[in-house]
Amino acid sequence: MPNQNPSIDQMFSALADPTRRAVVQALSQGPATVSQLAAPFAMALPSFTQHLGVLEEAGLITSRRQGRARLCVLNGPALRDAEDWLAAHRRQWEARLDRLEAHLETLKPAAPEKEPSDD
Amino acid sequence: MPNQNPSIDQMFSALADPTRRAVVQALSQGPATVSQLAAPFAMALPSFTQHLGVLEEAGLITSRRQGRARLCVLNGPALRDAEDWLAAHRRQWEARLDRLEAHLETLKPAAPEKEPSDD
Repeated sequence: MPNQNPSIDQMFSALADPTRRAVVQALSQGPATVSQLAAPFAMALPSFTQHLGVLEEAGLITSRRQGRARLCVLNGPALRDAEDWLAAHRRQWEARLDRLEAHLETLKPAAPEKEPSDD
Repeated sequence: MPNQNPSIDQMFSALADPTRRAVVQALSQGPATVSQLAAPFAMALPSFTQHLGVLEEAGLITSRRQGRARLCVLNGPALRDAEDWLAAHRRQWEARLDRLEAHLETLKPAAPEKEPSDD
């Protein structure tokens, strides 16, 4: 089974860290500068900007210079790619449960008010 | 911003690997034994079972002995947890875009057929 989407590796890997998820959460409310994003964290700025770099390489955020600051923006559609991957497999799993349930239903003895079948 | 859900770290981290995602994909079709799951991979069994261990620790799969084999089962609701996290933030991002769009609409000059407002 080849890796059909190598960038989804980076996306899930980027999301596997609480600081980076908090950045995604903050940016879901709207664009913010690096210093605005860094403010809630007791973390040296170079470590924090490394986290932003991971998010940017994974395609989850973009950033651009705005005057003397750097403005970060969430890439909503990329978030949707990861969501879609999960939803597709969760739905397959649910569909199988439904089929299993329907199959078990056919194995139940016939209800008393129904005519018993010949076989 | 504290880490509200430490296990989501493990979940996203587990999903950041193509072999492990392929296992999730295979198990979304129904339970399978370790050797059935390992068959498509050109990988030593100990490496493969390590991947299963990561998925199991993340709560994405469970496994149990079945005779001489070990049967793996996908934990669909856990998949949903990760999906919900992504969906919540994607929706927030979309809602903000909608508000922005509505705000931009209010900045447009009044349409010619409408009465101009007093203020």
